[in-house]
Parts: sequence; C-alpha cells; structure tokens
Amino acid sequence: MSQTPLSAEQAEALARGFKAVADPVRLRLLSLIASHAEGEACVCDLTEGFELTGPTISHHLKVLREAGLITGERRGTWIYYRAVPAAMAQLSAALAPAES
Amino acid sequence: MSQTPLSAEQAEALARGFKAVADPVRLRLLSLIASHAEGEACVCDLTEGFELTGPTISHHLKVLREAGLITGERRGTWIYYRAVPAAMAQLSAALAPAES
Repeated sequence: MSQTPLSAEQAEALARGFKAVADPVRLRLLSLIASHAEGEACVCDLTEGFELTGPTISHHLKVLREAGLITGERRGTWIYYRAVPAAMAQLSAALAPAES
Repeated sequence: MSQTPLSAEQAEALARGFKAVADPVRLRLLSLIASHAEGEACVCDLTEGFELTGPTISHHLKVLREAGLITGERRGTWIYYRAVPAAMAQLSAALAPAES
C-alpha cells in the first residue's frame, strides 16, 4: 500500500475489483484460469472440481469478466477465458504493504 | 497468482479477507492507517475526510480488525490502529500475476 492515502475515486474503483474476488468460487475460477495450460481455459475445463451447475459457473465468470479480471474469446463451441494480468496486478499492488 | 490452483480452503480464507477490503470506506481507512505517521492512527485521525459518523467508522474498523488486517491497541482515551503487513501481503500475493 502506498505512502499516500487512496482518494475516494481510487477506493471506489479498487473496491469493485475486490468485490469480484471476495467469493471463494470466483477466486478458484480465477486461479484455475491463470494456472491452466497456455494461460487459458474454457468452461469445459472449469466445471470439474466444482459442485456447481454450468449456469452458476457462467454467472461467476461473468462477474470476473465485468470486473476486467478475465477476458473471454469465443472459438467454435466454447468461450476461452484468460486472466488479465494488469488488472490483477493493480489490485495486488493496492494491498502490497508500504515499503519501510 | 501461483501456478497451482487454490484449494477450496485457501479460497475460503482469502475470500474472507477480500470481503473486508471490498468496500471503499474500508480501503480508505486501511490506506490512511498504513500511510499515517509512525504507521498508526487513532479514530481521531481517521474521521476527518469522511462524511461518516464515529460509530460507522468504528464499525468498518471492526470489520478490518476481525479480518486480521489491522490491530488496535488502547492507550488512554483512544484505540490506536496499525496495519498488519503479513495479512495484507497474503491477499496481495494471491492476486499477483503468475510469473511467466
């Protein structure tokens, strides 16, 4: 966290991102996508390991996408998701302890 | 974010932390405390700059404290709050993009 306090606007934008990851299913989805081969995964790769229906998984992916943390690209039958490193890095940096 | 997907237990614990910071007022309070002189601040230092009552500020500080992100120590009339760098670093690391 930087030496300068966050402005109200910065805090609003960051809080929107943190809301997207303040859910265990979404955190696991994000980590599955980020750690998947080639850095991308389709819903077909993501449903195993969850006791959740496809539509529920899709809802959580939509929240992550709307927060800018993942992108989705349709290729044939499937949408392939990728993490957005810059968006994750922005949230990560906001919580990095200030250097002393 | 590491190359290994998060376990359900890790995701639950991290999501609790992210819930605590998924609020603009709490993010600003955390940043004010972390950036305050000597790394600590009392409620008296935190109320200015917010259009919020003391009890509301105290509620948000309690959420941050219960999430382990700040500690509070009573000295005389006031409670002095400090950020917990290890707890912030844990959340920060969970969102750091995987090294490629």
